Amino acid sequence: MNPYMKIAVEEALKGIANKEGGPFGAVVVCNGEIVSKGNNQVIMTHDPTAHAEVVAIRRASEKLGRFDLSDCEIYSTCEPCPMCYSAIHWAKIPVLYYGATRDDAEKAGFDDKYLYDVLQGKTKDGRLNMKQIERDLCIEPFKQYEEDANKQLY
Amino acid sequence: MNPYMKIAVEEALKGIANKEGGPFGAVVVCNGEIVSKGNNQVIMTHDPTAHAEVVAIRRASEKLGRFDLSDCEIYSTCEPCPMCYSAIHWAKIPVLYYGATRDDAEKAGFDDKYLYDVLQGKTKDGRLNMKQIERDLCIEPFKQYEEDANKQLY
Repeated sequence: MNPYMKIAVEEALKGIANKEGGPFGAVVVCNGEIVSKGNNQVIMTHDPTAHAEVVAIRRASEKLGRFDLSDCEIYSTCEPCPMCYSAIHWAKIPVLYYGATRDDAEKAGFDDKYLYDVLQGKTKDGRLNMKQIERDLCIEPFKQYEEDANKQLY
Repeated sequence: MNPYMKIAVEEALKGIANKEGGPFGAVVVCNGEIVSKGNNQVIMTHDPTAHAEVVAIRRASEKLGRFDLSDCEIYSTCEPCPMCYSAIHWAKIPVLYYGATRDDAEKAGFDDKYLYDVLQGKTKDGRLNMKQIERDLCIEPFKQYEEDANKQLY
């Protein structure tokens, strides 16, 4: 049994026992050491972004004092939803181990597969009405950002 | 000029002036009132998930004490990346106004379009190595979750 995934599962189980959120856990590992653990805390924190992977990434970034986790790996008890998948990308984590799948999550009542289907164009998003407005106004920050030669990239 | 988007742009400009992160701002509005404002703070906070929309959603949820923002609208200076798009979904926000596009963000050096292309299968994700392990272990939390008749759904 993978020792990191075992801990991720324990985090998930603790989280549901404490009514913190859904049945998901995650662990961030750097050079064989566990940097952070996380579980879904949407119910407890009222934060809809508090998925296990996002919680673990935030904690790892805080602990290491950097947003670049390219020397880390992440273990998640379930295939990440598109939010968490993208968060892993933004954190520059190059390796992900996951256990259950988006189909398992769907059977438990979660929208992970729905979101993937929407993003892949397989399903129309009937829940979000998107309208583009004020593009000229909104590209001003890009212009100022591009002029800053000393900016830190991420 | 849309007054909410004007404020979102102001947040973006303040954020880059203070070197907090990228050129993005967002505002959450409920019944015509601004509930929260946010800007990208990835550099300042070291949190790779601190995109403008995620920051604004977290603040709105904290202020309102609920993860369900289905009576809110969100204004974002740029088309949300897949992380933020999914965060809007998880927050159940039904209306999104955005200004600049994923192409504008790409021109400024951001991976929003890359991530959409990967999720749509147009581009292979050469940056993340995903491996499935320990599914049997990882579906245990789902089983326990499903048995809890009093769980709060989100």
